[in-house]
Amino acid sequence: MRTTLIGSGNVATHFGAALKNAGHHIVQVYSPTQHNADLLAYHLGASAISDLDNIDTETDLFIISVKDDVIEQIAKQLAVHQKLIVHTSGATSLQAISQYNKRSGVIYPLQTFSKQREVDFRKVPLCVEGTDEVTIASLKVLAHMLSLNVYDVDTAQRKILHLAAVFACNFPNNLYAVAQGLLAKHQLDFNLLRPLILETAQKVQHNFPAEVQTGPAVRGDEKTMQAHLALLNDDALKQVYTELSQSIIKLDKVYNADR
Amino acid sequence: MRTTLIGSGNVATHFGAALKNAGHHIVQVYSPTQHNADLLAYHLGASAISDLDNIDTETDLFIISVKDDVIEQIAKQLAVHQKLIVHTSGATSLQAISQYNKRSGVIYPLQTFSKQREVDFRKVPLCVEGTDEVTIASLKVLAHMLSLNVYDVDTAQRKILHLAAVFACNFPNNLYAVAQGLLAKHQLDFNLLRPLILETAQKVQHNFPAEVQTGPAVRGDEKTMQAHLALLNDDALKQVYTELSQSIIKLDKVYNADR
Repeated sequence: MRTTLIGSGNVATHFGAALKNAGHHIVQVYSPTQHNADLLAYHLGASAISDLDNIDTETDLFIISVKDDVIEQIAKQLAVHQKLIVHTSGATSLQAISQYNKRSGVIYPLQTFSKQREVDFRKVPLCVEGTDEVTIASLKVLAHMLSLNVYDVDTAQRKILHLAAVFACNFPNNLYAVAQGLLAKHQLDFNLLRPLILETAQKVQHNFPAEVQTGPAVRGDEKTMQAHLALLNDDALKQVYTELSQSIIKLDKVYNADR
Repeated sequence: MRTTLIGSGNVATHFGAALKNAGHHIVQVYSPTQHNADLLAYHLGASAISDLDNIDTETDLFIISVKDDVIEQIAKQLAVHQKLIVHTSGATSLQAISQYNKRSGVIYPLQTFSKQREVDFRKVPLCVEGTDEVTIASLKVLAHMLSLNVYDVDTAQRKILHLAAVFACNFPNNLYAVAQGLLAKHQLDFNLLRPLILETAQKVQHNFPAEVQTGPAVRGDEKTMQAHLALLNDDALKQVYTELSQSIIKLDKVYNADR
């Protein structure tokens, strides 16, 4: 499949590498910044462009992997070529493309990507949506070449996933940062917490989180919770502590009622 | 070293197994519930007791690994034997034992233990405190036989660690549960989020959390945050979303100011 990559950020970089590894020919890489287009195109054996007017129309698929607020505008410009166009965004509807372009789709990779870290793309869940059965089928063939985990996810579900990912990734990372800050203030090494953080994530790989909840809140250990609150000087942190403790107690009730 | 284990819960179980693997002789296992004492004692090749009056005094060390609120009372009872006594609690002071017993200490394993999951104890950080230099030295020799990660941590620091562990483990697990609940409500498989959860924890094994923070809050993406809030029906969840987003923005400022 001849593919054109629109974008040069983290998702475009990892997507491009996965496509190349799966034997796809990447025709061009577009970025408004020529240097960024050059860098990624070099890695992918593609040519680089910084102007959409220089698009090579000898391609089968445009993958738009750019900031959410420019997806629609780029889709509008690319629609003239009458190709299959997909975006990779969790928070953007299929309609953002399909309003301009007949054969459109979404392949949303549900993972956190950083340029400096290798990710095993075959384990990345890919959420696929398309305008019609033929488009969906061909996007799923493509997705299965890149990953072992391919799911049908419509726009409404994808928006929920994107929200849930904030709770499962962005917020836990912030809490790691809060913990690291508490340690640093007391001359304690963050290495003390790293194995705990990893084990907490590993535990839910084969269990549901509610089954393995631990800590003072789920034990109803008021004394420890009061002692913890007394150690926190920051009012915002006290509030986070109280609310998440209440959330633990609430979900534990739901979990026990379900059993 | 001849060791007596007071307690049969998760920590006692993993501690006992690590001691046995390191070649220690476990003399007795105590639990007020004879059946629990029997079970763990059987695994450790020890004898089981459910009455502290039946303690075998031919031991070098008592390890008290029970609920926080009974540590002091047990220490008081064991003090008569004039042995080295340690507890394994993050939230309890050394003084809880040392007020009754001359040679006392703490070995706090900073990990979340479940009976059904194997943990590589050699990677568990062990936080050691003792009443005097000789006690500290001998507890550190013991700790180094069990783990590669041994730290000097005093009572005040240990209480901070215990609090930080709530932020690094108990609260993230609750957020995983919240995410799982959102998915379940929309017929989405929790497997979609599991790789993301694991990668988020793996990222901070070699980075500081503030360096790898992602998501709408750190990008200042108000539009996405508003869309997320609109998807949340639950007022408590809206509040958690808002507060953790503010926390991300705040810590990002601190991180950028420090660079």
